[in-house]
Amino acid sequence: MGDKKKVLVTGMSGRVADVIRKHLGDRYELSGLDLVAAKGVPCTVADIADLDAIQPAFEGIDAVIHLGAAPKPRDPWEDVLNSNLIGTRNVYEAARVAGVKRVIFASSHHAAGYYPAKAEPYTTIYEGRIGEVRRPFRKLTPNDIRPSSYYGVSKAYGEALGSYFHDAFGLSIICLRIGWLTAPDDPTFSPAALSLYLSHRDAAQLFQKSIDAPVSVGFTVLNAVSDNTLSIWDIEETKRVLGYEPQDNAGEDWTPDPNAPPVM
Amino acid sequence: MGDKKKVLVTGMSGRVADVIRKHLGDRYELSGLDLVAAKGVPCTVADIADLDAIQPAFEGIDAVIHLGAAPKPRDPWEDVLNSNLIGTRNVYEAARVAGVKRVIFASSHHAAGYYPAKAEPYTTIYEGRIGEVRRPFRKLTPNDIRPSSYYGVSKAYGEALGSYFHDAFGLSIICLRIGWLTAPDDPTFSPAALSLYLSHRDAAQLFQKSIDAPVSVGFTVLNAVSDNTLSIWDIEETKRVLGYEPQDNAGEDWTPDPNAPPVM
Repeated sequence: MGDKKKVLVTGMSGRVADVIRKHLGDRYELSGLDLVAAKGVPCTVADIADLDAIQPAFEGIDAVIHLGAAPKPRDPWEDVLNSNLIGTRNVYEAARVAGVKRVIFASSHHAAGYYPAKAEPYTTIYEGRIGEVRRPFRKLTPNDIRPSSYYGVSKAYGEALGSYFHDAFGLSIICLRIGWLTAPDDPTFSPAALSLYLSHRDAAQLFQKSIDAPVSVGFTVLNAVSDNTLSIWDIEETKRVLGYEPQDNAGEDWTPDPNAPPVM
Repeated sequence: MGDKKKVLVTGMSGRVADVIRKHLGDRYELSGLDLVAAKGVPCTVADIADLDAIQPAFEGIDAVIHLGAAPKPRDPWEDVLNSNLIGTRNVYEAARVAGVKRVIFASSHHAAGYYPAKAEPYTTIYEGRIGEVRRPFRKLTPNDIRPSSYYGVSKAYGEALGSYFHDAFGLSIICLRIGWLTAPDDPTFSPAALSLYLSHRDAAQLFQKSIDAPVSVGFTVLNAVSDNTLSIWDIEETKRVLGYEPQDNAGEDWTPDPNAPPVM
């Protein structure tokens, strides 16, 4: 255990953390931080809105994966304010005080969620009318900011705040705009997953490479989806910066369920 | 008075509001909102961190100029949280509830302030070593986000939040990344002003054109400086979207004061 990197995961009781524990639990010495204790991992039970309460969890940590948040696009302002705006500042600040070298911030495609909702060809893709998509089309990069909710705003904010903490204090911060990571690991539940799907093993690879990336990465924002043929999310920079080699593809040759839920 | 547009200015007691009152006080029916009452204008005294307290000031208003904020790059987190993160959300929300059609958000060059601090040729320009500047150089656009303080982060956040309020609720929101607007109106106090200077009359023109711009502008982020020869801030989009015709230029033919204060 002694030679393994110590990785603190905020939001350890959530869906994404489950994937990290399953795929990376042997590779790193994981610990957790959440409002409720996670099973099978040492866990600090505290609210990230309370800086003093969470500070001890950061001592001696090599890397932090910051997943903790009000996680739903429809979460109300007050929850987003406490958990995402104040909480993310506190996580960066606690990492800074503790001398943590790397923070991986779970950003989200929702930071640019209004492009898919409002513009072609994104609307056509998200509705699964694949034959109607005119190609090539411009893919979205992390320079695209168009949040579709307070939640999405909080993710764009977490990226900007990360760049400040990097420039001002030297923390290396990697922001991953995570697509749809689902349980079970199956992209066929909605046509929008043709674009947004992030398989469990591709997610695990991204987190592993983000933990182990050289300090020279500094600060970056990267799209994080699988190698989906119909993705509207550009992952060229993700491949270049992290050496990401996605293994999965949501495909394009299945017929969407006409009763599929609407795109969030 | 009846035919004049009703314009509410938050932060009415501040430096930028003085310019608005002096140059645009006859053109619009101005009212103010601030922690202390401004002279010569009807003013609601309230804290923008308190949504209920500020809501009445927004009733019947045609356009809001949102200047109110913890204004200094070194303002501590708690002040930025209350006045800039919570405050800006409350201003957009109050405008939405009251049916205001246009909000002009005073963003800041500090949203990208770390470029000047860290990269050439920006450092050379900001230090006034004009003869050493290699041209052409890439100018910064509103796509560049690299905040240099919590204050700068709050400005990038206010832009992202503005795009959400536009897309979700239909408000038209124009974000102006304001450079250095000083009292007295003189760019020669620091070499950095060669790039950052925004004269009083150019600022007044920008606010006027932002108030009167057609609803079709929707949402936009624009750099707001004078036509400075050595500006690192690209104003081509500002000219295109608003018809901005800057009258002033900080110049490039003066010798900076060797005792000038450092760049913020």
